[in-house]
Amino acid sequence: MSKNAFLFRQLFDRESYTYSYLLADQNGKAILIDGVAGQEQQYLQLIKELKLDLQLMVDTHTHADHITSLGAMRELTGAKTQVGEQSLASCADGQYRHGDTLNVGDLVLEVRYTPGHTDDSYSFYSSQLNAVFTGDTLLIRGTGRTDFQSGDALQQYQSIHGQLLSLPETTRVYPGHDYRGWSESTIGEERAHNPRLQVVGPDEYKELMDHLNLPDPKMMDIAVPANQSCGQLQ
Amino acid sequence: MSKNAFLFRQLFDRESYTYSYLLADQNGKAILIDGVAGQEQQYLQLIKELKLDLQLMVDTHTHADHITSLGAMRELTGAKTQVGEQSLASCADGQYRHGDTLNVGDLVLEVRYTPGHTDDSYSFYSSQLNAVFTGDTLLIRGTGRTDFQSGDALQQYQSIHGQLLSLPETTRVYPGHDYRGWSESTIGEERAHNPRLQVVGPDEYKELMDHLNLPDPKMMDIAVPANQSCGQLQ
Repeated sequence: MSKNAFLFRQLFDRESYTYSYLLADQNGKAILIDGVAGQEQQYLQLIKELKLDLQLMVDTHTHADHITSLGAMRELTGAKTQVGEQSLASCADGQYRHGDTLNVGDLVLEVRYTPGHTDDSYSFYSSQLNAVFTGDTLLIRGTGRTDFQSGDALQQYQSIHGQLLSLPETTRVYPGHDYRGWSESTIGEERAHNPRLQVVGPDEYKELMDHLNLPDPKMMDIAVPANQSCGQLQ
Repeated sequence: MSKNAFLFRQLFDRESYTYSYLLADQNGKAILIDGVAGQEQQYLQLIKELKLDLQLMVDTHTHADHITSLGAMRELTGAKTQVGEQSLASCADGQYRHGDTLNVGDLVLEVRYTPGHTDDSYSFYSSQLNAVFTGDTLLIRGTGRTDFQSGDALQQYQSIHGQLLSLPETTRVYPGHDYRGWSESTIGEERAHNPRLQVVGPDEYKELMDHLNLPDPKMMDIAVPANQSCGQLQ
């Protein structure tokens, strides 16, 4: 099946540089990946205009830099919410785990556990779309930081090399963020040109990641607890 | 031919909300549409990493809100530059006109004159990509303003209805800007849901466009003369 048989929309939140993805099968059964709080009216507009039936919403992990739209969108649409089994977001309707498939109409996403940025980081692979949604695990020419929120550079190294670089070279990579305005990449391109994938082994990767000296995300103290309540603080 | 046979990259300039497009055929012969000054190193990185041979650069029109990278990229790469025959940018290597095709390797873009936002506004249609690059003529759920730079609402109405809405409904629409983080649309979707295409005729469209009361673009006094020198002020 070609990508054209399905709906694919990449949506950008300019405040947090977050990419969200609205996908649907040929009958309009839809899934929203990594929706951002504050963007609900945009999602609703698109869902209504494209006559979509939003069935499922998932987050790739517990975000520290923005608040999820999971809870608000569930109230507005009735769509189910799922988070990874390690997530502390008990507000979600269900959990996914490694090896599961997310089925939305005829659209199938394969769940791959890719911890390292957080211990609840997952990627979603679709052979139908020839695409992988990598959250903050694999970014375009970068990788998600591993210095807080149960981050672990060695785990991330294994996740990227074991779960992501094993995908076909032409697989399109759709990350959770980009800070330069790049919208997509491929597995082959990241293997060849992502500076963080040029290191010779897990120890060197850990050494690199342990010395990035990044400031904490501005919203971390608000976003993490909020996201453990699906974006709706008590 | 499917979209996958060609390279397609949408690139976003966060300062001016501009989308640029880097396209290439299966042999890497490439064209850059609406490049933005200041982004040259990003373009060069992508061109180098993807082993592209940048042959041609075009602007959809003389931009008033950002400076083009035409001149700087020509110096850096030697690629040829083309602008529309109405453009005052005599610095360009050549001009395209309605009915021309831009041929870059096996990639073919059909030139459609779509004046109204400016008198040198063009769109580029590719049946190979099933896509049209609409500049500031047709935006996602909007249209480019027509109140300066030889803008003309009646002309724009004819351009959109005659040259763009006549394309197949599934044609993907890739605009020159989006201010909400939406990345693409389709002709069918814009026909149905673009508020400015719901008016009943050219006079009503002109009435609508004549009363938008928008402020001048911040960069207009700098950008227009700079862009008439391919982004390189004397």
